[in-house]
Amino acid sequence: MVNSVNLEFIELISMLSPTKIVLIVIDGLGGLPNPETGKTELETANTPNLDKLAAKGVCGLIDPVSLGITPGSSPAHLALFGYNPISFEVGRGAVEAVGIDFDLQPEDIAVRGNFGTVDKVGLVTDRRAGRISTEESTKLCQLLDGLIIDKVKHLVSPVREHRLVVVFRGEGLVPDVSDSDPQQTGVAPRHITALSLGASRMAAIANQFIEQARVILAEHYPANMVLLRGFSKRPHFPTMGEIYGLKPAAIASYPMYRGIAKLVGMEVLETGITFEAEIKTLKQNYANHDFFFLHIKGADAAGEDGDFDRKARVIEEVDNVIASLISLSPDVIVVTGDHSTPAILKGHSWHPVPILLYSKWCRPDRVNEFSESACVSGGLGRFPATQIMPLAMANALKLTKFGA
Amino acid sequence: MVNSVNLEFIELISMLSPTKIVLIVIDGLGGLPNPETGKTELETANTPNLDKLAAKGVCGLIDPVSLGITPGSSPAHLALFGYNPISFEVGRGAVEAVGIDFDLQPEDIAVRGNFGTVDKVGLVTDRRAGRISTEESTKLCQLLDGLIIDKVKHLVSPVREHRLVVVFRGEGLVPDVSDSDPQQTGVAPRHITALSLGASRMAAIANQFIEQARVILAEHYPANMVLLRGFSKRPHFPTMGEIYGLKPAAIASYPMYRGIAKLVGMEVLETGITFEAEIKTLKQNYANHDFFFLHIKGADAAGEDGDFDRKARVIEEVDNVIASLISLSPDVIVVTGDHSTPAILKGHSWHPVPILLYSKWCRPDRVNEFSESACVSGGLGRFPATQIMPLAMANALKLTKFGA
Repeated sequence: MVNSVNLEFIELISMLSPTKIVLIVIDGLGGLPNPETGKTELETANTPNLDKLAAKGVCGLIDPVSLGITPGSSPAHLALFGYNPISFEVGRGAVEAVGIDFDLQPEDIAVRGNFGTVDKVGLVTDRRAGRISTEESTKLCQLLDGLIIDKVKHLVSPVREHRLVVVFRGEGLVPDVSDSDPQQTGVAPRHITALSLGASRMAAIANQFIEQARVILAEHYPANMVLLRGFSKRPHFPTMGEIYGLKPAAIASYPMYRGIAKLVGMEVLETGITFEAEIKTLKQNYANHDFFFLHIKGADAAGEDGDFDRKARVIEEVDNVIASLISLSPDVIVVTGDHSTPAILKGHSWHPVPILLYSKWCRPDRVNEFSESACVSGGLGRFPATQIMPLAMANALKLTKFGA
Repeated sequence: MVNSVNLEFIELISMLSPTKIVLIVIDGLGGLPNPETGKTELETANTPNLDKLAAKGVCGLIDPVSLGITPGSSPAHLALFGYNPISFEVGRGAVEAVGIDFDLQPEDIAVRGNFGTVDKVGLVTDRRAGRISTEESTKLCQLLDGLIIDKVKHLVSPVREHRLVVVFRGEGLVPDVSDSDPQQTGVAPRHITALSLGASRMAAIANQFIEQARVILAEHYPANMVLLRGFSKRPHFPTMGEIYGLKPAAIASYPMYRGIAKLVGMEVLETGITFEAEIKTLKQNYANHDFFFLHIKGADAAGEDGDFDRKARVIEEVDNVIASLISLSPDVIVVTGDHSTPAILKGHSWHPVPILLYSKWCRPDRVNEFSESACVSGGLGRFPATQIMPLAMANALKLTKFGA
């Protein structure tokens, strides 16, 4: 139970120091018990190294947003970095664009798109066009890229499989318009409408773009339509450098997490897809930064697939590799997740996420195992994810005293 | 995790009752384990009476400000009295002036000063003038006291050793100016500048005062300069009488805590320096008040000196004397600290502070030992220090039901 302080307050008391913080985010870490064993994925995994860290450190549970709220990856990660995800919103389009390294300009409007399938009368039969390959999608994007409608240029980029990003570049565009993606099949794509007075031009152009795309894609069944959602601009957040005085680096292979890290001012390092590769990147860049965010996607993906055992295996792999991180002796190590993804729910959930923090200056508790049930009794208690950063900063002796 | 209610809300539901609350604040109570024994100062101390109270009462951990934040004594105490220390700020100068019983007027500007040493070219070589004695400092203050510059009178009072307070009394002064204390040696004192439009007169007068002080102190090496920081006015807070309907008394020997108590409207009683003397004062005044704040400085001082054993001994002394408090049968006894001061950190820290609350109406938990590690599992959980007062009031049956 805590009061939350705001970022301006943290900025006032942050100070420079040579200490280093490593934040390891096992995406979707939290789970639910397997009905047969009564143990969660994390409790099932054999994790001697994480258990040792938990015993020497202090544990607890975090709520990404607040009790009962299931977050998407973007708000969940913003919370981990200390940004209240209710006030710091990132539009879907902007996240996707930044995630694929698209150089989004201040006046650009980005929207996330799917290639989809419509039938002869125009009803959506598949919102993902049979999950066409990234290769196929790349070719189709080239057909749409560069269209100009009423002086607005359309920049169309593939993301992965059926997903794409459309960026509208022109003057006087505002993102306040509705989606065309109906989020269900058996209905027609929605007409895009203005949600505020100034937005009618944006809506008109987007509708024209969709109409032109429909004509161009007509012969490319199953990808004979684009469905758009999440019109948004690039948000401008205070950077982690400004707030915490840190020189932060992100080590993540998936585009979306690289995008979020970029939005909060991290340097995004080139790395491989395994946690081992990420640790190698960490070692190579260890001297140049004082904060490292390492992201492990596999646990969330396994959870979303409902694959309990694979999720447990991913956690074991992390445990295996973490020993070589410990040998670097960072001043503060935090291991947690952005949210829970219980395999039996096959998706993100609202359950709180285990966290362990190890530093020379932490006050160890009686927890000696990194698990949901043990973390309930941890010395950190249960607290909002936005408070992880002040806590990590304090343990790295990077915060001065407040008040006389 | 709790929602926090504000003071206006508490004021609405407070009611008078003859019950009595005693709040014992062991300054800097929270600690960190001695690396050799794995036990904190509190866990090392032999505290049979506090353990008995913990067993009969309910325990928990408080965060003075919020996770990771290390508070100074002033915000930490405001939180204990229910005032959110982020919104109720007290300037350094005002705390110091009120602490030495200076009768600060509404228009006065107070600033904290150090006697310091400058070399021939004006660079600071010692920010504390070799920590000159209070006696010496008192004499030097008399040389500066009473100076009048542009109709502003300067009231200069010694605090302790090299520390002093300067009060600027005149018309149209605003405290929004920078400090002259550079907070480091090897540089010149800073020129004081206005931080808002109306503050240029204050800045000009303060710079003239410093110049005159420099001339007057020229032959008083090492105290040949004054360094000023924390220009501020006396804040006006709602009193504890207004908020809680209490008739509160403070029993504290150190100036600063007496000052804070005064700012929130407590009657500050004369007392001796030991906890035993404080309990005697409590007994003598028991009939006249319904809330008593007792402050024990020794634990914090020992922690700041890095003296683990002395801190444990101070806690044992408190435990010894507390039996005679229990014999008075106050309706509510709360024992906690304002913040942690682990001996191994030699200073205040961000770690949560153990709390125990005993009343006839508390819901006892399974904790039967007053310690950091046991309090983790206490029935009060972990909560912001600002919530102690509503909790104590409730246990004293001084809060009515909210809503129909």
